[in-house]
Parts: sequence; structure tokens; C-alpha cells
Amino acid sequence: MPVPDFDDVLDAARRIAPHVHRTPVMTSTEFDRRVGASLFFKCENLQKVGAFKARGACNAIFGLDDAIAARGVAAHSSGNHAAAVAYAAARRGVPATLVIPRNAPAAKLAAVRAYGGEIIECEPTLAAREARLAEFVAASGADLVHPYNDARVIAGQATCALELLDEVPDLDAILTPVGGGGLISGTCLSVAARAPATRVIGAEPAGADDACRSRAAGRLLPAENPQTVADGLRSSLGELTWHFVSRDVDEILLAGDDEILDAMYLTWQRMKILIEPSAAVPLAVLLAQREKFAGQRIGVILSGGNVDLKNCPGCRG
Amino acid sequence: MPVPDFDDVLDAARRIAPHVHRTPVMTSTEFDRRVGASLFFKCENLQKVGAFKARGACNAIFGLDDAIAARGVAAHSSGNHAAAVAYAAARRGVPATLVIPRNAPAAKLAAVRAYGGEIIECEPTLAAREARLAEFVAASGADLVHPYNDARVIAGQATCALELLDEVPDLDAILTPVGGGGLISGTCLSVAARAPATRVIGAEPAGADDACRSRAAGRLLPAENPQTVADGLRSSLGELTWHFVSRDVDEILLAGDDEILDAMYLTWQRMKILIEPSAAVPLAVLLAQREKFAGQRIGVILSGGNVDLKNCPGCRG
Repeated sequence: MPVPDFDDVLDAARRIAPHVHRTPVMTSTEFDRRVGASLFFKCENLQKVGAFKARGACNAIFGLDDAIAARGVAAHSSGNHAAAVAYAAARRGVPATLVIPRNAPAAKLAAVRAYGGEIIECEPTLAAREARLAEFVAASGADLVHPYNDARVIAGQATCALELLDEVPDLDAILTPVGGGGLISGTCLSVAARAPATRVIGAEPAGADDACRSRAAGRLLPAENPQTVADGLRSSLGELTWHFVSRDVDEILLAGDDEILDAMYLTWQRMKILIEPSAAVPLAVLLAQREKFAGQRIGVILSGGNVDLKNCPGCRG
Repeated sequence: MPVPDFDDVLDAARRIAPHVHRTPVMTSTEFDRRVGASLFFKCENLQKVGAFKARGACNAIFGLDDAIAARGVAAHSSGNHAAAVAYAAARRGVPATLVIPRNAPAAKLAAVRAYGGEIIECEPTLAAREARLAEFVAASGADLVHPYNDARVIAGQATCALELLDEVPDLDAILTPVGGGGLISGTCLSVAARAPATRVIGAEPAGADDACRSRAAGRLLPAENPQTVADGLRSSLGELTWHFVSRDVDEILLAGDDEILDAMYLTWQRMKILIEPSAAVPLAVLLAQREKFAGQRIGVILSGGNVDLKNCPGCRG
């Protein structure tokens, strides 16, 4: 499996520029005061499809040769990656097929359909998803776009930290959520090339701490029955993301679900922007472990804003 | 009572620049599609204190002579104006006293206290508020900053449309919410000077339609027992704002509470930003009367983002 390098990131930045937003970097005097540091929030909740996933999907799909692209693209996902693949394929004008478990929220299915994606429903197990996808790919010749264990996707996600470092160059650390590890792997690539003194810190839900446990064990361990409100972060690392997480990440810090929801709720209320639970994990870590970051300049990637308002975990007394 | 002119607006823009944000203008392909027009959202929900009110309060308070400012400032309000006066006074380094009804939400009191404002509680009637404030002003010599019927405040609010027109010059119309009329009066000033062909349209809750009724009657009528979820828009116009609303506003359009909440909820979900019910009234009007705006370029002032998440009217099934 090819390992992406910084040239791939620069290629990705050029390739996806017409199709994604250069998202704003926001600051908050209230959160600076609470954490005792200077925080710079990269707002990927304001990205196309409401998440950084648009970057990786666009890089993968716009990088295909015309003949390959014409056969379409496919992925399995119940979350933001599905919408991102459907969006990128629609921009490219090629068909997208998404394998999605039967029990996925109606809002996710609607988002994929809104971008013109075809949906294949399957049983809600990873095995069923993978089998159904492999079957479809074999029959159709569609290009499979993995949500994170894919060099093209990682190079695309890297453009997020690249933009942040262009705008705020002298950061002491960048914090990103960690699920499958695509975002943090890309962040490692951009930091190594542009700001090697900046630490890369992963923020992981305590109930889905496979990256933290893997680093402690020195080998890739899968997530076992992950239980967290951060629905975007239940995936296990892959072989390729483990390469970066094991080698280039400085630290993985954990936050509990209550801390994650508190941080999400506070962000809505204080910054007036919607973020999803997964996006709140870095801020939850910063609020809980403020002594670690005192006086520093910290980049925080707000990874997405696709929260289900009907269940609205942030609206509590 | 002096009527502000465009020179006052230019003075205000210079005076308040160090103390308020130049807020971003956002677009949404989803809302453009739904309305069938090109919409430009001026995001005052991302303004200091979470509302455009910071502009007027800063202009009034930073425009005071030192000797007068030293005696402090005062206002009565149960909403964003109270926080804005406390914020501006804190920046200027002078005391602020806010007369606030006993039954105001705890969050509003907390916001005022967070900026160091002194609170005088009073009975929850307009008469009690005005009497208590007049008493305090007579005793202290504090400068009274009215939330809208004040030339300095109107000139400050005008800087919002001024920035929008600087960034998006060729608008067919600008829509603003209408409560006491300070924002729309200021908008009239900036439009007349910078974009006289642009229509100024007020969006008012059907349950607090005093501006609409006043225009129909040809004379200033007070709001009578206003009932609307848009809590920032229950005030009646004042003599000074009626001057602008009667003369320079092209049209006032109404929206019901259900339409207002739907528009608010959609904005949270689609644009990933929090807006308060009052800020959703223009979009509610656009969605309900889309044929009126087909193909046009429309500025929309998202007036604020201070929604009470604990009661969270947007989180519905």
C-alpha cells in the first residue's frame, strides 16, 4: 500500500481547490480564557458536505483517469464519508454507489441521495458492509474509495492542516479527533513538511480508544465494541493510518462522553457554530487538561457539523 | 431628537472598528436553491456579544466625552442590548448599570455580569423598567443608551449594512428583522448613501407586527401584547426609527412563528451556524414568498445567535 508524501499533499491542494472551501479559522476569547491558551479553530464544519471528508473524497475522485472514473466510484460508510464520495462524484459527473447499513439514520441516506448517490442497503455489520461492497466493486469495476486507509484520502485530508499552518504558522500543537486516523495522518504529513516543531496530538473518545491502546501496546489493535457519543470516531485504525499514528503523532489524549457533550454544547453556545460530537473531542481534551497547554498556541480542527438535531444531545438543562 | 445621517455612520465605522468584528458574509447553495435567488448572509451572530447590538452600544459609549463617560452608562433591556452596553462600557473602562426585569432568563443576567455590568432588578413591566432607569440616571448622571431610539445607536447599527454593501455591492434588496427598528433604520442610511437602487425590506413576526400596522395606518402604533417566539422583536418602534421605517423602508413582510422556527432550524442544520429566532425572520419570509425574489441578489442580516439551548425550540422531530 503506497504511503503518501508531502508532494501528494501539494498535488491534492491544487486538485481539490475548485471543489472545496478554504474554511475560516475562528478564535474565541471565551475559550482562550477557559483553557488559558490561544486557540485557533479550523472550521471544517463549514466545509462542503459539513465535514473535512470532502477533501479526501475529492482528491481521490478527481485524481482518477477518465476511463477509470467513468466506471464510477464506491464506498461503504454510514457517515460523512458517504456524503463526501457522493458529492465529489457528482462534481466529477460520475456515478457513486454507497453501501450503507439498513439502520443508518434517515438524514444520512437523504444527504447521499441529495448528491445523487446510489444506495445499496446491507445488514448493519462491518462484515456485511465489506462483503456487499466487494461484490459490487467486482461486478461494476467501480473505484473503491476507503474512508481513511487510502493514500489519496490521507493526502486530501492533509490539506486541512496545510491551510491552518499557512494562516497561523507558529503553533505549539495541533489537535485533531482520531477515528480511523485519516485526518491525523494527513495532519502529520503537513506538519512534518511545514512546521516540524509543532506537536500533533490526537483526541480520542475514552469509549473508542483503539489508537491510544495500540500505541501503548506497540501494535495495531482494533476497536472492540466501541461505545461513544462521537459517532464519527468508532472506526479502527488501518494499516496505513497506523503507520502515521505510531510514528509521527506525539500523543493521544482521551475524553469521556460527558466531557465531549459539554464541549460541543459550549461551542454551539459560545462560538455560535454547530459542531458534531466527534468534532468536540479536541476541545474536551483541552478543557480537561488545561495545565498541559498553558500559554501555548494551539490549532484545533473542528472536523464536522453534521449533528442530528432531532436527538440533539447538546440541548440539556 | 437629532436624526443621524451618513456622516454619522462613517464616524461610527471608524469609532467602533477596534471593538467589533467585521463579520463574515456567508452563502449557501442549499438556500439559494430553495429560494431561487442568490442570498448573502451577514453573520452578526458571530459579532461580539453574539449580536449586531455591539455596534450601536460601542458607537454610543465610545463617542462620549471622557467627563461624561466617567459617570457611567445605563440602559434597560432584557436582551442583547444589555450585554452590548455592558461589553462596550467594559472596553471603555466605565461603569454600566442595566435595569433588567426580575423574570429575565438567568443566561441573560450571567452575560451582563460576565462583562462586569451592574444589574438593578425591577418588576417585569415596561413602566417599572423605565421608572427605575430614570430614577437611576437622575441620581447618578449616567448616560442613557436607548436600545434603538437613539441617533448614536442607529448610526452604529448602520455599519452592518455598510460592510455588507462594501463586500457585495449589487444587491437587489436587503432584508433585516424589525423589532424596535434600530437595525433597519441604520440599514436605510447606508443603503441610501451607497446603493440607492437596493430595496430595504423589513421582516417582522406576525405576532408583533406593529411596524407593518403602523405603515398601513400612516402613523406610529405601539405593539399591543406582542406574542412571538422571536423574543428580540417584541419592542415597539420609537419616534426616531418610525422616521426611517415610514419614509425609507420599501416593504414590511410578515412570518408566523412556525415559519420562523423552521427557518432557524434549517439554518442550524444546513449552514452549521447558530442563529436566534429573531434572526431567522428574514429567511422565513424568503422561503414563504420566494416568487417575489426569484433570480435576485438578496442580502440577509442574521442579527444574532443568542438562543437558549436549554429550551431549544429548534430541536424538534
